[in-house]
Amino acid sequence: MSARRIRLVVEYEGTDFAGWQRQPNAPTVQAALEEAVRRMTGEAVTVSGAGRTDAGVHALGQVASFQTGNARITADRFLRGLNALLPPSIGVMAADEVPLDFDPRRHARGKLYRYRIWNAVARSPHERRTSWHVRAPLDAARMAEAAPALVGEHDFAAFRAADCERETTVRRVTRLEVRRDGPLIVVEIEATAFLKNMVRVIVGSLYEVGRGAEPVEWLARVRDGLDRTQAGPTAPPEGLFLVRVDYELPLPARV
Amino acid sequence: MSARRIRLVVEYEGTDFAGWQRQPNAPTVQAALEEAVRRMTGEAVTVSGAGRTDAGVHALGQVASFQTGNARITADRFLRGLNALLPPSIGVMAADEVPLDFDPRRHARGKLYRYRIWNAVARSPHERRTSWHVRAPLDAARMAEAAPALVGEHDFAAFRAADCERETTVRRVTRLEVRRDGPLIVVEIEATAFLKNMVRVIVGSLYEVGRGAEPVEWLARVRDGLDRTQAGPTAPPEGLFLVRVDYELPLPARV
Repeated sequence: MSARRIRLVVEYEGTDFAGWQRQPNAPTVQAALEEAVRRMTGEAVTVSGAGRTDAGVHALGQVASFQTGNARITADRFLRGLNALLPPSIGVMAADEVPLDFDPRRHARGKLYRYRIWNAVARSPHERRTSWHVRAPLDAARMAEAAPALVGEHDFAAFRAADCERETTVRRVTRLEVRRDGPLIVVEIEATAFLKNMVRVIVGSLYEVGRGAEPVEWLARVRDGLDRTQAGPTAPPEGLFLVRVDYELPLPARV
Repeated sequence: MSARRIRLVVEYEGTDFAGWQRQPNAPTVQAALEEAVRRMTGEAVTVSGAGRTDAGVHALGQVASFQTGNARITADRFLRGLNALLPPSIGVMAADEVPLDFDPRRHARGKLYRYRIWNAVARSPHERRTSWHVRAPLDAARMAEAAPALVGEHDFAAFRAADCERETTVRRVTRLEVRRDGPLIVVEIEATAFLKNMVRVIVGSLYEVGRGAEPVEWLARVRDGLDRTQAGPTAPPEGLFLVRVDYELPLPARV
């Protein structure tokens, strides 16, 4: 029986998960997918993902993949079967069969993250799981003005988790946009790859500019300083979405 | 101590509530608001609402009102205090002081409801609490084509709950729009007043047209038949939002 590799586009609400990556004694998205595949195929598989989203972070288009020796279950049947077995906070939105050597993380050419800020005095019940509630007024135009300092190829050493152990901290950001839609401020950032917590530290730094604590030019200075302690706070996970992962091999259509 | 009347604009996620209206042994939005006011003022008040939303129905702009003999608490302090006391699924988005005789239901000049349908094979984790998941493909253009049959002043006897006891079933719908945004179909309906379950039966009837079970002209025939059993099913509550209530007295600004 020859092995096949299945690719999944996965949406999840991260609220109730300790993140993507499997760990003992905590519910994770990876473990839920592996358990659902095991129930369909009887195989103990590893489901690998394009990005290891943190606890509380959401995904609209995480990409995951696993290998199976079961020759009878088509990609479409996996989609329907997994959705019947997964908890309602995880959904498989698309699936296809890919070459055996496909690796969702290594083969990713770029990713799009979105960060949502609910900027109003009154908290919003509907936005409470999917945005950072900031009561102080933020000037989104100032944030947008500062953003270009981080577009292009830069050393992002200042914009990462304190415990990030990557040796190379140079990354290429291809787009960083800030827009306001009523009380909601949406930050979108596309890059070829990201450092740990990079989006959340960038958003925390834009927040310092938005609330007027730092001037617009400050963001470039933090970038050049390469010092995490000079950047803004790490924005909380609930506002962050992994929206899309891009590959040479086009993603399967959503159904 | 002279009495004052406070008006609130209230947002809630209806998922965990047995609807707006107070009832024994079940959590309701009205009871939660009354309890929060009681804790602020020490008064046992009645908080009346513009619309008695059903169990599971959401609000972005429900309007509620109560009378207080407490002269010290301003509308703005009520907003902040109530938000600190209410469960996270209810939020007060705006508040002002209104004439003592203000009645949120009787003085309403019109209301806007929105209904969201997630129309895809795969269920969406992020849309699960706030949309009706319909797997069969719906033709939103056909639904939009049928909609004008219900705009204007008509007898809506066919489009109401079987147990609706209103004697007059003539209502004036000022707008009924259907639009598609990817997998999401959004129906918006504005009227001067509504019958019980009117929006949900209208959406259930548009659904019959959208899935091709009935022709576009059918909706006008159902309207003219005045018979609830000829209309479509009652669409489930989780897709429905009370978006806005209009008054002669302009609503307070959101903060």
